[in-house]
Amino acid sequence: MGELSSVFSAVPTHKPVKKQIQFVEDKQEFSRFPTKAGRRSLSRSISQSSTDSYSSAASCTDSSDDETSPRDKTQTNSKSSTDFCVKNIKQAEFGRREIEIAQQDMSALISLRKRAQSEKPLAGAKIVGCTHITAQTAVLIETLVALGAQCRWTACNIYSTQNEVAAALSELGVAVFAWKGESEDDFWWCIDRCVNTEGWQPNMVSLPLLFDKIDANVHSLRVLSKAGKLCVPAMNVNDSVTKQKFDNLYCCRESILDGLKRTTDVMFGGKQVVVCGYGEVGKGCSAALKALGAIVYITEIDPICALQACMDGFRVVKLNEVIRLVDVIITCTGNKNVVTRDQLDRMKNGSIVCNMGHSNTEIDVASLRTPELTWERVRSQVDHVIWPDGKRVILLAEGRLLNLSCSTVPTFVLSITATTQALALIELYNAPEGRYKQDVYLLPKKMDEYVASLHLATFDAHLTELSDEQAKYLGLNKNGPFKPNYYRYVCTF
Amino acid sequence: MGELSSVFSAVPTHKPVKKQIQFVEDKQEFSRFPTKAGRRSLSRSISQSSTDSYSSAASCTDSSDDETSPRDKTQTNSKSSTDFCVKNIKQAEFGRREIEIAQQDMSALISLRKRAQSEKPLAGAKIVGCTHITAQTAVLIETLVALGAQCRWTACNIYSTQNEVAAALSELGVAVFAWKGESEDDFWWCIDRCVNTEGWQPNMVSLPLLFDKIDANVHSLRVLSKAGKLCVPAMNVNDSVTKQKFDNLYCCRESILDGLKRTTDVMFGGKQVVVCGYGEVGKGCSAALKALGAIVYITEIDPICALQACMDGFRVVKLNEVIRLVDVIITCTGNKNVVTRDQLDRMKNGSIVCNMGHSNTEIDVASLRTPELTWERVRSQVDHVIWPDGKRVILLAEGRLLNLSCSTVPTFVLSITATTQALALIELYNAPEGRYKQDVYLLPKKMDEYVASLHLATFDAHLTELSDEQAKYLGLNKNGPFKPNYYRYVCTF
Amino acid sequence: MGELSSVFSAVPTHKPVKKQIQFVEDKQEFSRFPTKAGRRSLSRSISQSSTDSYSSAASCTDSSDDETSPRDKTQTNSKSSTDFCVKNIKQAEFGRREIEIAQQDMSALISLRKRAQSEKPLAGAKIVGCTHITAQTAVLIETLVALGAQCRWTACNIYSTQNEVAAALSELGVAVFAWKGESEDDFWWCIDRCVNTEGWQPNMVSLPLLFDKIDANVHSLRVLSKAGKLCVPAMNVNDSVTKQKFDNLYCCRESILDGLKRTTDVMFGGKQVVVCGYGEVGKGCSAALKALGAIVYITEIDPICALQACMDGFRVVKLNEVIRLVDVIITCTGNKNVVTRDQLDRMKNGSIVCNMGHSNTEIDVASLRTPELTWERVRSQVDHVIWPDGKRVILLAEGRLLNLSCSTVPTFVLSITATTQALALIELYNAPEGRYKQDVYLLPKKMDEYVASLHLATFDAHLTELSDEQAKYLGLNKNGPFKPNYYRYVCTF
Amino acid sequence: MGELSSVFSAVPTHKPVKKQIQFVEDKQEFSRFPTKAGRRSLSRSISQSSTDSYSSAASCTDSSDDETSPRDKTQTNSKSSTDFCVKNIKQAEFGRREIEIAQQDMSALISLRKRAQSEKPLAGAKIVGCTHITAQTAVLIETLVALGAQCRWTACNIYSTQNEVAAALSELGVAVFAWKGESEDDFWWCIDRCVNTEGWQPNMVSLPLLFDKIDANVHSLRVLSKAGKLCVPAMNVNDSVTKQKFDNLYCCRESILDGLKRTTDVMFGGKQVVVCGYGEVGKGCSAALKALGAIVYITEIDPICALQACMDGFRVVKLNEVIRLVDVIITCTGNKNVVTRDQLDRMKNGSIVCNMGHSNTEIDVASLRTPELTWERVRSQVDHVIWPDGKRVILLAEGRLLNLSCSTVPTFVLSITATTQALALIELYNAPEGRYKQDVYLLPKKMDEYVASLHLATFDAHLTELSDEQAKYLGLNKNGPFKPNYYRYVCTF
Repeated sequence: MGELSSVFSAVPTHKPVKKQIQFVEDKQEFSRFPTKAGRRSLSRSISQSSTDSYSSAASCTDSSDDETSPRDKTQTNSKSSTDFCVKNIKQAEFGRREIEIAQQDMSALISLRKRAQSEKPLAGAKIVGCTHITAQTAVLIETLVALGAQCRWTACNIYSTQNEVAAALSELGVAVFAWKGESEDDFWWCIDRCVNTEGWQPNMVSLPLLFDKIDANVHSLRVLSKAGKLCVPAMNVNDSVTKQKFDNLYCCRESILDGLKRTTDVMFGGKQVVVCGYGEVGKGCSAALKALGAIVYITEIDPICALQACMDGFRVVKLNEVIRLVDVIITCTGNKNVVTRDQLDRMKNGSIVCNMGHSNTEIDVASLRTPELTWERVRSQVDHVIWPDGKRVILLAEGRLLNLSCSTVPTFVLSITATTQALALIELYNAPEGRYKQDVYLLPKKMDEYVASLHLATFDAHLTELSDEQAKYLGLNKNGPFKPNYYRYVCTF
Repeated sequence: MGELSSVFSAVPTHKPVKKQIQFVEDKQEFSRFPTKAGRRSLSRSISQSSTDSYSSAASCTDSSDDETSPRDKTQTNSKSSTDFCVKNIKQAEFGRREIEIAQQDMSALISLRKRAQSEKPLAGAKIVGCTHITAQTAVLIETLVALGAQCRWTACNIYSTQNEVAAALSELGVAVFAWKGESEDDFWWCIDRCVNTEGWQPNMVSLPLLFDKIDANVHSLRVLSKAGKLCVPAMNVNDSVTKQKFDNLYCCRESILDGLKRTTDVMFGGKQVVVCGYGEVGKGCSAALKALGAIVYITEIDPICALQACMDGFRVVKLNEVIRLVDVIITCTGNKNVVTRDQLDRMKNGSIVCNMGHSNTEIDVASLRTPELTWERVRSQVDHVIWPDGKRVILLAEGRLLNLSCSTVPTFVLSITATTQALALIELYNAPEGRYKQDVYLLPKKMDEYVASLHLATFDAHLTELSDEQAKYLGLNKNGPFKPNYYRYVCTF
Repeated sequence: MGELSSVFSAVPTHKPVKKQIQFVEDKQEFSRFPTKAGRRSLSRSISQSSTDSYSSAASCTDSSDDETSPRDKTQTNSKSSTDFCVKNIKQAEFGRREIEIAQQDMSALISLRKRAQSEKPLAGAKIVGCTHITAQTAVLIETLVALGAQCRWTACNIYSTQNEVAAALSELGVAVFAWKGESEDDFWWCIDRCVNTEGWQPNMVSLPLLFDKIDANVHSLRVLSKAGKLCVPAMNVNDSVTKQKFDNLYCCRESILDGLKRTTDVMFGGKQVVVCGYGEVGKGCSAALKALGAIVYITEIDPICALQACMDGFRVVKLNEVIRLVDVIITCTGNKNVVTRDQLDRMKNGSIVCNMGHSNTEIDVASLRTPELTWERVRSQVDHVIWPDGKRVILLAEGRLLNLSCSTVPTFVLSITATTQALALIELYNAPEGRYKQDVYLLPKKMDEYVASLHLATFDAHLTELSDEQAKYLGLNKNGPFKPNYYRYVCTF
Repeated sequence: MGELSSVFSAVPTHKPVKKQIQFVEDKQEFSRFPTKAGRRSLSRSISQSSTDSYSSAASCTDSSDDETSPRDKTQTNSKSSTDFCVKNIKQAEFGRREIEIAQQDMSALISLRKRAQSEKPLAGAKIVGCTHITAQTAVLIETLVALGAQCRWTACNIYSTQNEVAAALSELGVAVFAWKGESEDDFWWCIDRCVNTEGWQPNMVSLPLLFDKIDANVHSLRVLSKAGKLCVPAMNVNDSVTKQKFDNLYCCRESILDGLKRTTDVMFGGKQVVVCGYGEVGKGCSAALKALGAIVYITEIDPICALQACMDGFRVVKLNEVIRLVDVIITCTGNKNVVTRDQLDRMKNGSIVCNMGHSNTEIDVASLRTPELTWERVRSQVDHVIWPDGKRVILLAEGRLLNLSCSTVPTFVLSITATTQALALIELYNAPEGRYKQDVYLLPKKMDEYVASLHLATFDAHLTELSDEQAKYLGLNKNGPFKPNYYRYVCTF
């Protein structure tokens, strides 16, 4: 699933660090930008999807008035600061409204903000961040500020910035360097301006992670950690149980329907769909489509997942058995070439093919770029690939992640991520020296439970408390943690 | 539910009629336009929703280049005809593509077209139509032409015309008089041009019907029929079983999710929702939301429907019991003031209120237009109504039909309607004299079954045939009808 | 579906009638017993299923101590009456407990009893009844007595009587003539004793009806009515909306699972099941099995029902397409020979075949009684039919109704039936002369709604009341009826 | 959940062991029998439930003809062996049929038997077993024999033996010492006769485990292992992923419905149910009940599970909030006193309370054994507890595990367990010296996957194979394992 989150690294203020320098040096590791040769196409692919996923709320600013580069403009906020660089500081008020709307669905984070505001647990923290800059991120940043931190921020993606939100943050005093549609040169200029400022030494870093099953960035981070390059402890908030279940099972359950509907207006009832892969993502997609009246087939390589699919009421088949039959193919495997050109050749006229999994390699899209096939862009993110005999196959998001490209991520899910991040930062910043070494850690189970408990209010859910007698019987502390730490391991069965 | 369909009236060619004249005289009866005084607001209300529901595919033409009125332009199609009036005949090619896309999901109608094409069962039919002009309607019109009919068409709504589709039809030779954004004067001018043309006497009329439970237009038609005003037989295709189930239960099941998601990006999981009314529309909405993890409450006045809701696993409550609790209210009653200002005052901050039922009176929207409340339009069709204490209630489509305004109707459902219409026209046109008198008829059950059977191919569904022995045992004809005619009665239980 | 209910006929007390005489004369019409030749096998078939369906609660009395015929014993209840004939009056206390347990789930009927008890609307009614004699029937009979009626009762089936319930009723003063395991001669003797007693002239009759789609008894009644044979009005409580939905959709949803589990302990998850027929019964069975993880295929003859199955997410196939594949066949058609010997020959080893539909002719069981096949009874109601190659097909209830034979009918559903019956009796008995002629009537819609409303309390459901303004807007009376009378027509779509 | 399984310990034949001696010495550790003082009540509790869960198929033998103790009889099988002690060797043929029926749903185990039969991987293995002796266990034992092992078997429970199955095994040559209704003295006599026989030294032991979340026996085994008492390696087959999901989620989904229906005939539609605990068992119960139309509330102590319940569409409440409202309480917590006497006092008349969780302490049943309350046994496993005011609460299985007591476990689930056990034995017996030390091991992931793959045939499921290129891309072996070993950790989220 394509949710966005962050890994935080931190060192106590009393240990001056040069982290930000290393950060810039290893820039392609962190920013997902490949070496020059391959950069162009990848950045395009990433940016498009990011763009779309955030376009719903703020589309009014897309048709930008002004073509002057922000780098060439001098802007001043109402507090006379010029330490920021955004598209148009005058959009601050509109951005403020977007942030306020986002806050409505992030009440857990706001509640954390309120509880900890007087303590200022991040007093003295100087955080430099590099993430998508959206209304939801803004709620996180403003929470960090409310808890005492100083923040400077830049975008991790050249297309994903909501300009009006960047303006609102800058108006508030956060030094933001980001706008939608940066050039590559702009990108590195922004990072430089963000990190290297006179008399301000960051002591915590917030980095973006595009979560997926074989996660390149966490992996990089781990490799770095092993190699001794990463001199600060970091927390991997991606593997928290709360985040996993929400980002994958629950989020996909909603976004597969939304993504298909917004792009194709397809009727679900009676549609024959094959879902490739029955991990959490495949489970979420299958359940939602079945619930709306689709007939779903599953392909799997793992017999344990296959057996689960059977018990859940799905026929487990090889793709070739149903390829001529199905109306929709959805890939959720993390694998490559799950749908080949040969199979695309055999699909029905009017059938839809899309990807909810990890990479953009699941569907062999490249194989479709041959002269005998005609591509027709019928809507944003929707291509008709037309065979010589007139058959059309509808390809969504060019095989990239459908839900990142063509649907929205519920703010509530982003709230869970953001709250987890805020807690991780507080934990790292306040941990007694020695608790965390230079490594990547998982969020302690108890914090995971705390994040969950903060979000229960949204549902008006009431937790039962253990009696003393019961706690003793179960061998648990009354306040948790209620599960051992090894439960944290991602469980995709 | 807000699906669009038609009632057809027809007289054989050998009986010259003046139907079209009466049609124009009684224009407010048929077109849903009230007397002058009330016309302005109603037409606005209808047109907005119609506009939106068709905007997805063809939005590229919305920002129309040219402000000249089509009435003031002279356009010529490639066959040198000037007998049409559309926005821009040059958009014909784009419109053709839209029609082709629509055809993909209307294979039953295309199949009917192919089967009957050689027979030309509508040879000699001169049909004047007044409906929404969309890609789906175009597939119907072109089918009528393929079956031998001559057609002239005009729009039943000043906002709902897809300009490029009108152009494509005109290019093909259908005399279309319609464009998006007609003035009221344009509207009547178009009807006049459509109907009254030299040397062309229509013998069949196709009229629009906005279906709803207490359907004003069918009612008008019935009243007319009783009063002897309607001198031709007509068929009420709205009460066909196939159309009912598809337009209400199945269509609402899909569109409630789509409508809420497109407007608010709301996460369904864990949301507390109250659905007012448990007829077919309420059943469809409740089932879909429950399937996606919402907790649904039902209000009902009819104990039989209430008992069904109980058995289906919903708590049946009075609205006041849950008004402070719920995140979403959806009205599906056909009643008025189901949600009052007093109740809106008690809703939670951030809660959503919308209407899937009949009239725009279900939510007392008028009561919200008071000075102490601030309205903020945050997206198209989405208003935040803000109370003095800062509480926001999110009102969708200003209380009009959500699915007509904020989601799309699956083409497959429109295909059922259009196929039913085509068959009704063929039946009326070819019926032996005397079979139909001047009244409103239901489509014979057998035709209803025929429409259904044509649509089974879409699902690769295989019907079982009765053996002679079985047919005899059941007292049925092997080819149907399989149910008595009274089964046709709308059954909302 | 196999629920049991009654048709009541009544004449006012001031018109002495000979109804009971005709009743006895036409006994094979009413009692479902054929002429002598065919009687043996049919009575066996009916009785077995009835027996089983009531055995759960009171099995302790099955192994009857005493082989003396009740006809040969003289028994006296505690009020010194001898006007009854049951197995053993001493079981009255045990029967009383069974009745009390049944009352717990029949609170609506009890509530009706309490409301009308002071009015005694049946004062003067002399009701002779011939139904299954079970705890639930007893609650009905005791309600009639509480409302002022005098009752004499006999069993409609030689196996279905709960002896201890019959004893409890007799102890209370109801003249019951019935025991489990009557001979045919006993059966007619009991009816005679029940009806023809000195100085007691019945003025209402309560008869049993085995409900099914093409209902033989209602049919007989209608034929009689037309022929002028039936000289009293009667009400067909089977076609009431409430009863229909509950007996078919909701009841089958529960009993298909129960029936299969109790007989075969089959695991539902992943099972491939074909359901023949997609009326209300088929819909209920399919939905339940799908919900528990089975993969369900549908066969249909009616394209409208087939299209619904498609939209509900089922593949519609011909039986032959899946016969080698499926683990379970369930017939719900009302048709004959839906599963033929040829098809049974091709079923998998270990597959299950059963009937939820109308007749015992849906599965061609007779064709399995050939020498090359071995029948092995492995449990009550469960036969293994063994092919020469060792293949076993598991046949349930010998093809008779599974839910009548192998599961229980929820008391709540019986409560709806019984309450409807009580109201029908009150209506007929109190109607002004002339309202009902000698015909079969449907229960007025308003009463149907009243029965439903009485049952809402069970679910703690709260009905919404129309305001005066709303009632006026909808053109309805505030107290209902809320639907026109033609909604009553059975709607199996 | 109450499924039964085994832990196997094994030592190679070339290492003569005295395991069986220790086994007898520590008998109360292994057999779950406490010291003399507490033995009586516990054995009663266990035995009753075990009895019931296996009674469905073979109840005909329950009313045993003959009261002579098997110990006092001399019986000989057809091969003239007397080395066994069962109720009645003449029941062997009936037992054979039961075993054959069980085999139909254990095709995976049969398939393993066939594949390995020629290799005889257990040649030389001498296995002494102590488990429930049922038809399903017999299929396992006969598989072990087919693979080359010699087996001697005894019962782990004095009530759970299917006598006819014990006879069939003895007839085949397996030395079985067990009958239904052993005294405690019989129990130890049987173990002694089974283990200590002239010239036969067992080299593998098969022991029973009653699985539950805090599993006493696995725990004992671990403790023993740490203490060096257990001198052989053992495998914990309970924590295999396949077994976990099947025993808990899928099995409970089916058995909660079955257990409630068989005991109370309750209608699920519209029932208000509170499920205490939202682990795998709670998830399975909730999903099944919701699917059948019940309204389900959840109580939880763990905020992460609570949040999942919310997203799955359940209201999360404290028990006290709904105690007066609900019709059914189901405990699934593993905790004690989850339902207290105070809460039972406040339940509605006619409400049902039962336990699907671990211990029989979840419901405070002891608190109900007070003089003011009357207990009335209405059916096997069903008690009405009656308050002074006449209120009845229906208590199932006296608070013990409902599904073990009142429903059946699908044979397919037992097949997964048995196949896993057979593989574990083969692995331990054939492992190169040194692979397994004296400890408790988890089944290697690959074997877990193998068990799953053997069971896919039942569903006609077709696994997809990785291409070389894909395997390389994913870094996996084409034949698995497909998940890392840490995925094995029980994941109850």
